[in-house]
Amino acid sequence: MADLTRSQPARRRRGLLIVLSSPSGAGKSTISRMLLDSDPHVTMSVSATTRPMRPGEVEGRDYHFVEPGEFQRMIADGEFAEWAPVFDHHYGSPQAPIKAALKDGRDVLFDIDWQGTQQLHAAMGEDLVRVFILPPSMGELERRLHERGTDSDAVIAGRMQRAAAEISHWAEYDYVLVNEDMDSCLAEVRSILAAERLKRWRQAHLVSFVRDLVAGSPQQI
Amino acid sequence: MADLTRSQPARRRRGLLIVLSSPSGAGKSTISRMLLDSDPHVTMSVSATTRPMRPGEVEGRDYHFVEPGEFQRMIADGEFAEWAPVFDHHYGSPQAPIKAALKDGRDVLFDIDWQGTQQLHAAMGEDLVRVFILPPSMGELERRLHERGTDSDAVIAGRMQRAAAEISHWAEYDYVLVNEDMDSCLAEVRSILAAERLKRWRQAHLVSFVRDLVAGSPQQI
Repeated sequence: MADLTRSQPARRRRGLLIVLSSPSGAGKSTISRMLLDSDPHVTMSVSATTRPMRPGEVEGRDYHFVEPGEFQRMIADGEFAEWAPVFDHHYGSPQAPIKAALKDGRDVLFDIDWQGTQQLHAAMGEDLVRVFILPPSMGELERRLHERGTDSDAVIAGRMQRAAAEISHWAEYDYVLVNEDMDSCLAEVRSILAAERLKRWRQAHLVSFVRDLVAGSPQQI
Repeated sequence: MADLTRSQPARRRRGLLIVLSSPSGAGKSTISRMLLDSDPHVTMSVSATTRPMRPGEVEGRDYHFVEPGEFQRMIADGEFAEWAPVFDHHYGSPQAPIKAALKDGRDVLFDIDWQGTQQLHAAMGEDLVRVFILPPSMGELERRLHERGTDSDAVIAGRMQRAAAEISHWAEYDYVLVNEDMDSCLAEVRSILAAERLKRWRQAHLVSFVRDLVAGSPQQI
């Protein structure tokens, strides 16, 4: 695929925020990793969470693991762009790095649910691009959860119960994908990102580019 | 590139209208041809025009060539979605095939200028996706016009005069591209098309898909 950032260097356009939401197992985590690995202009928003660290997770890379009391302080001090309770724990996105990225023309990827997306949309408006990933079927969703092998059957049963609730919010998103296979779904997400970067209002540098282009025309003709 | 129409068959989504505008020589005609050749879901809107047929042009493929009197009748009978005078001739887009395409989930490509785009936007609203293609420089634009070899120096001088006026309308478009090379520009247009097809409101079939998905979940769990 051609370099879609070629005619609009990251430093010269406004960054954007892209959220991928889906029920657990629909593929958003895999697609997020593939996107981050293939696009240097995208960085992941590292959420703060009160849930315990899982085997293999790294502080500051997967999450900022904080105590419940510290999480409450961060809420009180307005340090989150969005936060929400999920199961028995809390998750939130610190807002300082988000605003810095938008200003620097970097894009930030979010792996958050419908609650966080609603708050982030209220806070960030058009800077946020909302993508919902649907599974091809609930049976396939459950199969993927078992295949992942990270959750007990009890946890999977709980996730399947929550899946229908998460999916019920699909219509609150700008783009909706059905994840029949990871490669097609990744290509779709990459196209959405490429297109959103080309939106006129995100390319403020074009105002001066066009001014110089037209002003220069008499000499060049 | 993965098949971006896979999870949303053309017949099941609402079609869209995409306009590529640019000054002559910025590449929109070449990119239009490359897009039509590479995407079976896109058809070209064949404009009616009062200008004489050029060598190599075919009636009904390149244009519907009509007499000035007939063109005026079509205006009077409201048969155009947009029409505009360009140089000494008139150009217009018949609207019957446009509405049929939207309903059938086919996409229609327009090669029209800012005047036609304004009218088409007023008539079709969000069904229209507006893309403006800028040349990297006016010198490069003139070089391409000479290279094309279809116009006299006098005509080229006239086109260069009109180029600045055409470019002055760039900010009326949804997406803006700088055509530094054809392959990158085509990839960008393809990404815009792929993304616009994935917009939630264009995928009305997802309402029943999600209803069945969630309703089916108890049986499948």
